[in-house]
Amino acid sequence: MLEELRAQVCQANRDLVAHGLVTLTWGNVSGFDRAQGLVVIKPSGVPYEKLEPGHMVVVDLEGKRVEGDLNPSSDTATHVLLYRCFTGIGGVTHTHSRYATMYAQARREIPCLGTTHADHFFGPVPVTRPLSAEEVAADYEGNTGRVIVERFANLNPLAMPAVLVAGHAPFTWGTTARGSLHNSVALEAVAEMALGTFQIDRDAPLLESYVLDKHYQRKHGPAAYYGQK
Amino acid sequence: MLEELRAQVCQANRDLVAHGLVTLTWGNVSGFDRAQGLVVIKPSGVPYEKLEPGHMVVVDLEGKRVEGDLNPSSDTATHVLLYRCFTGIGGVTHTHSRYATMYAQARREIPCLGTTHADHFFGPVPVTRPLSAEEVAADYEGNTGRVIVERFANLNPLAMPAVLVAGHAPFTWGTTARGSLHNSVALEAVAEMALGTFQIDRDAPLLESYVLDKHYQRKHGPAAYYGQK
Amino acid sequence: MLEELRAQVCQANRDLVAHGLVTLTWGNVSGFDRAQGLVVIKPSGVPYEKLEPGHMVVVDLEGKRVEGDLNPSSDTATHVLLYRCFTGIGGVTHTHSRYATMYAQARREIPCLGTTHADHFFGPVPVTRPLSAEEVAADYEGNTGRVIVERFANLNPLAMPAVLVAGHAPFTWGTTARGSLHNSVALEAVAEMALGTFQIDRDAPLLESYVLDKHYQRKHGPAAYYGQK
Amino acid sequence: MLEELRAQVCQANRDLVAHGLVTLTWGNVSGFDRAQGLVVIKPSGVPYEKLEPGHMVVVDLEGKRVEGDLNPSSDTATHVLLYRCFTGIGGVTHTHSRYATMYAQARREIPCLGTTHADHFFGPVPVTRPLSAEEVAADYEGNTGRVIVERFANLNPLAMPAVLVAGHAPFTWGTTARGSLHNSVALEAVAEMALGTFQIDRDAPLLESYVLDKHYQRKHGPAAYYGQK
Repeated sequence: MLEELRAQVCQANRDLVAHGLVTLTWGNVSGFDRAQGLVVIKPSGVPYEKLEPGHMVVVDLEGKRVEGDLNPSSDTATHVLLYRCFTGIGGVTHTHSRYATMYAQARREIPCLGTTHADHFFGPVPVTRPLSAEEVAADYEGNTGRVIVERFANLNPLAMPAVLVAGHAPFTWGTTARGSLHNSVALEAVAEMALGTFQIDRDAPLLESYVLDKHYQRKHGPAAYYGQK
Repeated sequence: MLEELRAQVCQANRDLVAHGLVTLTWGNVSGFDRAQGLVVIKPSGVPYEKLEPGHMVVVDLEGKRVEGDLNPSSDTATHVLLYRCFTGIGGVTHTHSRYATMYAQARREIPCLGTTHADHFFGPVPVTRPLSAEEVAADYEGNTGRVIVERFANLNPLAMPAVLVAGHAPFTWGTTARGSLHNSVALEAVAEMALGTFQIDRDAPLLESYVLDKHYQRKHGPAAYYGQK
Repeated sequence: MLEELRAQVCQANRDLVAHGLVTLTWGNVSGFDRAQGLVVIKPSGVPYEKLEPGHMVVVDLEGKRVEGDLNPSSDTATHVLLYRCFTGIGGVTHTHSRYATMYAQARREIPCLGTTHADHFFGPVPVTRPLSAEEVAADYEGNTGRVIVERFANLNPLAMPAVLVAGHAPFTWGTTARGSLHNSVALEAVAEMALGTFQIDRDAPLLESYVLDKHYQRKHGPAAYYGQK
Repeated sequence: MLEELRAQVCQANRDLVAHGLVTLTWGNVSGFDRAQGLVVIKPSGVPYEKLEPGHMVVVDLEGKRVEGDLNPSSDTATHVLLYRCFTGIGGVTHTHSRYATMYAQARREIPCLGTTHADHFFGPVPVTRPLSAEEVAADYEGNTGRVIVERFANLNPLAMPAVLVAGHAPFTWGTTARGSLHNSVALEAVAEMALGTFQIDRDAPLLESYVLDKHYQRKHGPAAYYGQK
């Protein structure tokens, strides 16, 4: 079942390596078939270069395995929760990419300092609050999803397709598995450049809000003119 | 038309990847046939590894498409303006390369700290002023070109083939597409080394002006003796 | 003798390059056959790309060569001492990987700032004391092992499979050669991200102890649920 | 003539790329046949991937071309001066490798902070004084060699096979072309790690002198026991 989605999700997981986002097996991509309510996700702890579409695991929106012999990613409950709460997303990527994780560990949002950021993220990339001891003890991965959703109470996940989980690492999403991966790539670049910008000038200014609007809209707005039709 | 220029521009765009200057599709190179007044430029949002000479788009000096099925780079209006205003240039490269973009985001010029810089850029690499809200609202990409040209009122673009657009990223140019690409490579190295030099010593000294003169002239002056005839 | 262990150790040494942990010949991996009390280790100063299983050197627990034509790694005495003192380990990796070595040179432990760290190291990665002039003069490499063991007087080497030797570089270990290599990979990532985290915020907080517990246990505890059975 | 030395020098130049030491054409390696008093060096401005042994240029100890159609490296006069003044060296490498150049631009010596440094450089890596305007105006490249030699008045070039030219970049040497290249590789690693060590702790301590002695001697002293016979 879901042959095409399996292939897409497998490829996106393999591309984590090509984009330099993963070390060992620290990352996973999933895709969502909203019509059927099923999620296709990477199996846990399997090296990327050995991944084939048939290894992908299919789970339902409770995170229960529906198809596949392998255990799904240990982060499955987080992915599933995002699909349940963020309408319109079709892919989720989780990595421990170096610079985005540094910001997650420092528990600092990534401010918008330039148009690279504005092309992908409509405002500062937010950080969750830390989980409580109780939230960690029971359903840790589900609660990781819940603090993300809580953080987005007043944010539009389609305009801000990334979050930093405090003390952990980033999650990104998109309308497809591949789209969520590309947002992880963009997030890592934006994080690295934010860190460097502040090394040049501790008081570097934020991008003007009208430039943020312009760049985001020319790429994602109703009158977008970036790319091909 | 312009078969050879198409091939050169295509290759220079592909080489953006080999030189580590681009992430996703964040960069573009163009070339200029001054005799015909035509610009050959990368199509918007197409991955580099798939680029072929036939994909390149030909536009005139108004930025209107003359040949090609694809949309030209969204930055076309900036390229075109540079060709109109900077006599003698034949190629333009735009990237969001990491370190040069950090300086653009910090809105700080890159001072000349060593001979690597002096070999390519005759003085500090300048930063534009920010665009106003009005300039962003109407003809954003054209106005990006205009603030660059404004910044060069008292600079010779052939001796300073690079600029940092405030809050955005670098543009470089050269007598050919390939030359403009090489200046992007040099700019990125120079930016990275400037950042690191100041991490070693906040008060690192500028290169002596007579060494700047010497290095620039031995490579680019009338009595240059670097390279082959 | 020890054909399979030779093959494993050879592969792990070659993988030092693939994981970006070594420069020139600055690193070595060994494996231990506890039943026979024999250690298989890289020969000294041989480039990784030329290593074959037959080049590996077999030494006993005194560090004396039992089989092989080449000299064993100059760090052999350190490896041997770790096998003698740390029950349960079956592989040791030594590198001068960039970021872990920076921490070793700064003689600072690597605090646990996030779940990447918690997934591999159960607490801050410790630093040894410096060796005395006498310890350097006589049996330097053996004494390097002894200061490591001394530092672990109150630590469990299986829960903390890494150490920074002051002014030198890291050693990691694991139940297999490959496991020790993976801990070197994880250590390098953790060191790089710690350095960057403190660049973002000098006062970045430690990971909550209950998250450290959770992550370590879900991967290494009796009820671990990461990976496949 | 000098077929074997041509091949060695060509290979060492190509290996500059493999070791990540060069950008564009910013680096060159030469080798010296002391018996004949002839230097084999890279031609100026030729890309590394196109270099063949037949492209190498042979010059005498005055820097005059003896064989070869291409212009020798613009840094030839510096190489030649080092061969004339530093007895026992047989290869010289010049690069603008990132981290070593940052130290050269900051005009700071690289202190010995760890055993990686001690394995290759017996003490802090020195910096030259800046050249005067007169020294730049007349015989710039020869005078670059002279300020290096001046800096080594009280140093043994065989025990300290590297220098940072103030405001420029490093030169390294060795008994062979390949040896000089390896010292450039080591220097770059040592420079990067020094910068990072001081980012962790501004007051990081120097390596104990008895460890510096030990490491240098075990690799280079009369009783060296690193590597194979």
